[in-house]
This record gives sequence, structure tokens and C-alpha cells, in this order.
Amino acid sequence: MSNTMLIDGQPSRQLQADDRGLLYGDGLFETIRCERGKARWLTHHWQRLSAGAARLHLPTPDLAMLDREVTQLAAGVERCLIKVVLTRGVGPRGYRPTGAERPTRVVVRHDWPGPMPPLQLGRSTVPLGENPRLAGMKHLNRLEQVLAQMELQPGLVDEVIMFASSGLPVCGSMSNLFVCQEHELLTPAVNLCGVAGVMRTLVLEAAAALTIPLRIVSLREADLARATGLFMSNVRWGLMPVAEYAGRRMQMDPRVQRLWSWIDAQV
Amino acid sequence: MSNTMLIDGQPSRQLQADDRGLLYGDGLFETIRCERGKARWLTHHWQRLSAGAARLHLPTPDLAMLDREVTQLAAGVERCLIKVVLTRGVGPRGYRPTGAERPTRVVVRHDWPGPMPPLQLGRSTVPLGENPRLAGMKHLNRLEQVLAQMELQPGLVDEVIMFASSGLPVCGSMSNLFVCQEHELLTPAVNLCGVAGVMRTLVLEAAAALTIPLRIVSLREADLARATGLFMSNVRWGLMPVAEYAGRRMQMDPRVQRLWSWIDAQV
Repeated sequence: MSNTMLIDGQPSRQLQADDRGLLYGDGLFETIRCERGKARWLTHHWQRLSAGAARLHLPTPDLAMLDREVTQLAAGVERCLIKVVLTRGVGPRGYRPTGAERPTRVVVRHDWPGPMPPLQLGRSTVPLGENPRLAGMKHLNRLEQVLAQMELQPGLVDEVIMFASSGLPVCGSMSNLFVCQEHELLTPAVNLCGVAGVMRTLVLEAAAALTIPLRIVSLREADLARATGLFMSNVRWGLMPVAEYAGRRMQMDPRVQRLWSWIDAQV
Repeated sequence: MSNTMLIDGQPSRQLQADDRGLLYGDGLFETIRCERGKARWLTHHWQRLSAGAARLHLPTPDLAMLDREVTQLAAGVERCLIKVVLTRGVGPRGYRPTGAERPTRVVVRHDWPGPMPPLQLGRSTVPLGENPRLAGMKHLNRLEQVLAQMELQPGLVDEVIMFASSGLPVCGSMSNLFVCQEHELLTPAVNLCGVAGVMRTLVLEAAAALTIPLRIVSLREADLARATGLFMSNVRWGLMPVAEYAGRRMQMDPRVQRLWSWIDAQV
């Protein structure tokens, strides 16, 4: 079997146990879809990773190096997911970074998961804590999502909507949320909690390009109840229609396919 | 130099890069004070670790094994800190645990840090997200504390009070907070955010044993302004008086020494 993991560019499967990524979740990650040996939407991933790095005061990742390492692991594979983990690296005891840490870079290839049918969508009992200093980032502090996914029942509840501690619906446990209304699409703001998914950004770009009305809002539960359809987004699924939410059948919305066709045509 | 790290009981410094502790912060930790080769307050640490493990659906850690491994690393050392990290272990891609993971145990010895003078206490600009499902636990999702400690200026600002996103003061970035009033002591509840420190528990026990009035409250900023004194707690510091908070000199409170004497007499 070909190598499936690089650490700081070298074939390896182990890292230092005093890495701050382990000790504090002090780092970021990306999950990149690769097709025929090439990363899809790599610039979008790099932009989000760079924005997170700036917020955590980590050095800006090198796009060419990211491309090279992802391509190295994806070579010869029809379709796979490549996860990139970027931590602050090894440091002495204590939350406070010294500033002398050198980031650790883990790049790992995963098999492409099986296909998914339209989602059976439930509601999570796990709230999302609100913190504007962390919101939107794909950082390594993901216990809320771990606890939420413990409540999934694949085939019965494939994904759950997570609600902010204030009560507003924000996103799925592994996806972003879009609400179809007759005249426009809505998606929740992720400035207090939630992740600004790469596929979410692509949907915003697609809607703008296709002049499909789409607004970022403080979504309310009533908006879910009034929705004619719902769909979820992540780079693995692309845009995934919701078949049923909280016992209610949802319509497939024709805008979803139009958005996806635009997104799928982007490199 | 003697060995200073055990992973799953074996001398090692590396762990698998697909450990869920790294990928999601899916785990817990303890920082244990050791004196003359023995762990202080080990049962308290084990109880908190066990409570966290139950909440994350991890197996209960083995107290005898914990004692053995800590003692092994502390042997022959006058005073040190031993950090124990317990993760869910290695698993396949995805937030959702399979249930078949085997926990990873990292035990590492750190030198005893230098002495600290009474604290110059500041205010953090980093809020604490409120989530009752995570509150109180010493889990590995610690980015809020990392960001807060980036604002410290040792000697000028040694520690900061962190406020919940609701605005209430909750704890320090590495310690719990106690407010001295004339007739009673107050400490913030940690049921929405914050860590239930082992030293905080010992203070609660000491106050009960000594019949020093102490209440757990939803502390308000006005309580800080009215305080005659403040002190912070963690197992490294014990009970640490605050010299100055937000430009205001604080009195040393005689109750602090009485509480500490009781705590220091416990095994």
C-alpha cells in the first residue's frame, strides 16, 4: 500500500506527545476532496486555513507546499479525502505559547466514504457555546461535534442541526445548513459559533454568480418550520438535500442542482 | 536523565497522529502536584477525571494504575508537576466514535515552576462560550485559555479573569476565582463554563470543615468591585492572593491561610 500520511512532509504516523495540538487543541484542520489525483477547491481551503492561522497567531501556511503534499498523497487515487492538521507545535508546559513554537503539519489520506442518500435530519441536544473569538474557524476544539455525533443513528438520523446556547439553529454537526424559501435561500451566520465551511463559501459564491437570492441571517426556529426545503453542505457531500426534518418530509429544491453545477465547475 | 514520559505505561514520547485527542481534543487531562515522590490529592484528581470520563463516555480510569505511573515518574524528585492526558484513542475518520476505541494515556513529568508573588490580576477580552455539556470538565478543548494567556504580561498581568459570553465573571485562565467579603466567601458556579478545579473542590471542603461561610454563586461584576480581597486557586499555586485587580489594591484575607493549612494537611 502506498504511503497515506505525511508529518512535516515526511512519511510518518507519529507525532510528539507534547504537541500543543494534542494538549490544547491548539491548531486547525481542513478536509479536502481529491478527484483523479487533484485537490478540489484548494485555494478556498488555503484561504480558510490562513484566516484561522491569522486569528490564532500561527504562521500563514504555504499554499505551494500544501498543494505538493496533498497531490503526493492523492496521486493515482480516483477519489479520496485528505485531511490536513496544522498545530502550533511542541512547546513547554502551559497554555501560553512562547512564540518560538514551530507548527506541526499532518497530512493524511482517507478512503472516499460510501454514497449517502438524502438526509434524515434530527436535532442535537448538544448546544454550541458562543464565542466570537473562535466562531467560524475549523479549529481542533471539536468536543461539541463529537458529543453531537454520538446521538446520530445512521439511516434514521444521519445528521443533526445544532443550536447555539442562545437557542438559534446554526449548522449541522459536520455540515452547514441552508433553508429554501419560495423567494430566497437563508443560511445562519457563523460569527458567534459554528464553522464557516468551504462548501458554504462556495454556495455563497455560486448564488451570487447565478443571482439566486441568498441571505446570511440570524436564523430562527420558525424559519425551519416555514422552509419548503433544506439542504446541508460540506466538501464530502457537496450539497445534500434533507429528505425529512423533525418528522416532516422536505421538497427537493431545483436551486440546489443549479448551485452544485456551478460549484462543480470550479477548480 | 531519568525517563519523564509514559504512553500507555511504556517509556515513549510519541503517539499516533490519528489519535482523537489530537484530531478533536477528545479527551481529558489532570495536572498533579507531587512532593517527595508522591502525588498530592490524587483521589480528587481521579474523581474529577472519572467524572469527565463518564460525561464523555470514556472508560473509568484505573486509580491504582494512575498512582503507579505518577509515582514512577515522580520517584526521587523533591517537587514536580505531572500531567496526565487521557484521550479516546485512535479511531477512523469522523467525529462519531465507533465505541471500539482504546483510550490513550500520556503521563509526563514537568519541573516544578518558580515561585509566584501575589498576582497582578487583569481582565481577559476572550469570552468563555457557555455549554453545560462541557462545563466543569478539564477536557482538551482549551483554545479559549490559549488565547486568553496570549494577553498575559508576566509581572504586570500574571493572570486574567475570564467572563462568560453572558458577561459574568467565571474563573481565571488557569485558576479558579474566590471573592472575599466581610461575612462570606463567594466563588462562581462552573455549570455553564469554566473548569471545576481540584483545588477549588478542596477549598469548598476546607470551608465546610472549618465552618467558613462560602457560597457558589452566579457571580456578578459588582461582587468583584465590592470585594475586600480576591484569591485564585490551582494545584500548582495552592491559594494565591491577588495583589491588585483592575488597578485596585486588594487586602490579604486571613481566611486564605486557614483554608490552605487545612488543604495542605490532606493527602
